[in-house]
Amino acid sequence: MLRFDVTHALPFLPQDWLTGRLDALGRAQDQLLKGSGAGGEFTGWVGLPAAVDQAQQAALERAARTIRDQSRVLVVIGIGGSYLGARAMLELLTSPNYNLLCRDTPQVFFAGNTLSPDAVTELLDYVAEKDFSVNVVSKSGGTTEPAAAFLLFRQLLEKKYGREGARQRIFVTTDPRAGSLRAWAEEAGCATFAIPPDIGGRYSVLTPAGLLPLAAAGVDVAEMLSGAAQAQKNLSRPGPDNPAWQYAAARQALYAGGKGIELLGCYEPHFRFFGEWWKQLFGESEGKQGQGIFPACVELTADLHSMGQYIQEGSRNLFETVVRFARSRTACPLTVQAGDELAFLRGQDLHHVNEQARRGTLLAHVAGGVPNLLLTAGERSAYWAGQLVYFFQFACGLSGYLSGVNPFDQPGVEAYKANMFALLGKPGHEARRQSLAEAGLV
Amino acid sequence: MLRFDVTHALPFLPQDWLTGRLDALGRAQDQLLKGSGAGGEFTGWVGLPAAVDQAQQAALERAARTIRDQSRVLVVIGIGGSYLGARAMLELLTSPNYNLLCRDTPQVFFAGNTLSPDAVTELLDYVAEKDFSVNVVSKSGGTTEPAAAFLLFRQLLEKKYGREGARQRIFVTTDPRAGSLRAWAEEAGCATFAIPPDIGGRYSVLTPAGLLPLAAAGVDVAEMLSGAAQAQKNLSRPGPDNPAWQYAAARQALYAGGKGIELLGCYEPHFRFFGEWWKQLFGESEGKQGQGIFPACVELTADLHSMGQYIQEGSRNLFETVVRFARSRTACPLTVQAGDELAFLRGQDLHHVNEQARRGTLLAHVAGGVPNLLLTAGERSAYWAGQLVYFFQFACGLSGYLSGVNPFDQPGVEAYKANMFALLGKPGHEARRQSLAEAGLV
Repeated sequence: MLRFDVTHALPFLPQDWLTGRLDALGRAQDQLLKGSGAGGEFTGWVGLPAAVDQAQQAALERAARTIRDQSRVLVVIGIGGSYLGARAMLELLTSPNYNLLCRDTPQVFFAGNTLSPDAVTELLDYVAEKDFSVNVVSKSGGTTEPAAAFLLFRQLLEKKYGREGARQRIFVTTDPRAGSLRAWAEEAGCATFAIPPDIGGRYSVLTPAGLLPLAAAGVDVAEMLSGAAQAQKNLSRPGPDNPAWQYAAARQALYAGGKGIELLGCYEPHFRFFGEWWKQLFGESEGKQGQGIFPACVELTADLHSMGQYIQEGSRNLFETVVRFARSRTACPLTVQAGDELAFLRGQDLHHVNEQARRGTLLAHVAGGVPNLLLTAGERSAYWAGQLVYFFQFACGLSGYLSGVNPFDQPGVEAYKANMFALLGKPGHEARRQSLAEAGLV
Repeated sequence: MLRFDVTHALPFLPQDWLTGRLDALGRAQDQLLKGSGAGGEFTGWVGLPAAVDQAQQAALERAARTIRDQSRVLVVIGIGGSYLGARAMLELLTSPNYNLLCRDTPQVFFAGNTLSPDAVTELLDYVAEKDFSVNVVSKSGGTTEPAAAFLLFRQLLEKKYGREGARQRIFVTTDPRAGSLRAWAEEAGCATFAIPPDIGGRYSVLTPAGLLPLAAAGVDVAEMLSGAAQAQKNLSRPGPDNPAWQYAAARQALYAGGKGIELLGCYEPHFRFFGEWWKQLFGESEGKQGQGIFPACVELTADLHSMGQYIQEGSRNLFETVVRFARSRTACPLTVQAGDELAFLRGQDLHHVNEQARRGTLLAHVAGGVPNLLLTAGERSAYWAGQLVYFFQFACGLSGYLSGVNPFDQPGVEAYKANMFALLGKPGHEARRQSLAEAGLV
């Protein structure tokens, strides 16, 4: 079970940081479990890990095998929650260098999350001469970035393999019934997987949105689900010992005390995109109504030599949450000769040095006025990744309810799209185009 | 010349945002050019681009050729400013996928910026069977992360090539005279390059610290220096039209008005690590004395689907700075059939769509209360990268002086090291170890 340690934030917290929030946490817990709070129609993820559809899971594993058998490259097309979860878990559980290291599994590239012609062309050129498959992930199919990428990669597939061949290489993850992508996939006869309608993008990594590309890359998704199910079980018990209650209460209490920025850090470079996933989870859930903790990430110890100065001595409106893996996967003993500058590390494993860097940093940052929260997982494995995902999702739901927002909507995401569509002359956006034209902006 | 556009921040700025700071900017400009302000002993970067040592530059190009000729992989060992600049420029000017795409130049990996045994072991295993060279970059040689990595990779080199062969493959970038790494390199007879003592890590990308790995990877470093020299010329002229004056004044005025977080964004995924470099530059220069703008980054449009909700509707303490490249390198026309959902994009190039996304986002964010600054470069090229580097460095110096700090020191970086050394039992740290022990922390 994950261990959550609030000790190093206590000097910055009022005495009732947790007790004063127990009633609200009890209500929030109840609302999450029953789906009776704001946005309750999007709490399908709460019970998901313990109720996985085994038939769909088997179909997913079969599709993953097909992808592996027929492809040297898998292009995953998606943006936001249809992208970050899979990339986060892939890099955490394999490596940021996965595409250089993979042997029996296909390279995985994430497309459809940019409108840069250079980035898209680079990948189109790279896969042109390779056997590849596409997994397009989009609840609606209407989002411009993935839709444009899907158009381009589909055209390339059809050029290489013909219309029929292309359809064997397109795997569609979308709404089970609604939307243009579902309609297209049904007509084309592609393999399809469902993102449950009651699960929003940033809570969807344990649905096929995340699991299909991960399974194709050889990640043990059953273990991930098993870890998530264990966390579901652990966190379903209400009370002050519940680590998700403690995390949600601590961060809201720190926020109330003027700590407006949360830095998520980890002493493992493989964790970088987990941080990006976490930023979406919390930022999109809580950043509304003119409020919300600003989520940022650091990669440690690297960023102690870039952001470390700021953390130690800059504006005192930060707190830190560190994710720690108790064990490393590999041993890396240091063979140092006497007299060498590093002689004090003689006979030590690098993991030990990393741990002392973490402890030394904790003490330094706390002394500098930065509250620290610590979350310890056993190791960098699919099981513990599943636990971490569920922990952060559940704590985010609680924290959002504590702060009085609906943690499951994202109304602000439409604003840029409406302007973009007006500027591009998309039908249905004439009124805004007119007003932009009157302002001299078209 | 870079264009800086403050128009979309003006509604959030007092009328005297620039005029009220002209005197202070004049003084700061003078201090930078003369090295007469706080930290003036570290302003060697100010005049660097126009005064490059041609003999050293030729030696650097020769070493780069040697590295290319003898290596399939170059391992660059460094942390903070001895790492982020080179990685930022490499990814910006080639690709985040450079290591998959490079053909006639070696793969480049950045090591020595982590204490993770998994990350270090992964790279040691990867290069074990490949011809590789090492470029170790450290002003002192004493920093633990790069020192430990250098030990491990040097041992591997010696195992593969013998002591003499290893020395042919080690390229040392360090202080011209001082430090343990300089002493080691002189004794070993390795090729060495100098980081001028009057240039700190985060301002060192245009020294051999950045230029040697970039040249080895085939980046046109002469063009980079030429762009930087052009920017040096442009920005040396004092006055309210100076874009660095405008940027420095605007961000300090926004900060004074309660905007405590600056988000640097770009609509080009290749820009991600430029953002990391920029975060160190500004965060480490200004985050001191309990103050400073918190620097964060977004990759657009990807992060409109993760951080976009927060930017649009979260706490209103943000402003955005967008770096725009006016032209893309490649054309990516969209061939869309009538009736298709994307029919409104018919005949458009993706670059046009990207530009409309950028413009639509600008309007949406400004309407949502987020001041926007815009910096336009011509294209994603070495020349413009050089201009951008110098622009941000110079503006950072000005901005730091405006805010009353020494933008060239980083006293807070020592705090974690002191604890770590005490915990690890490094000689000379006994007193702190004793006090940690008394607190039950050893």
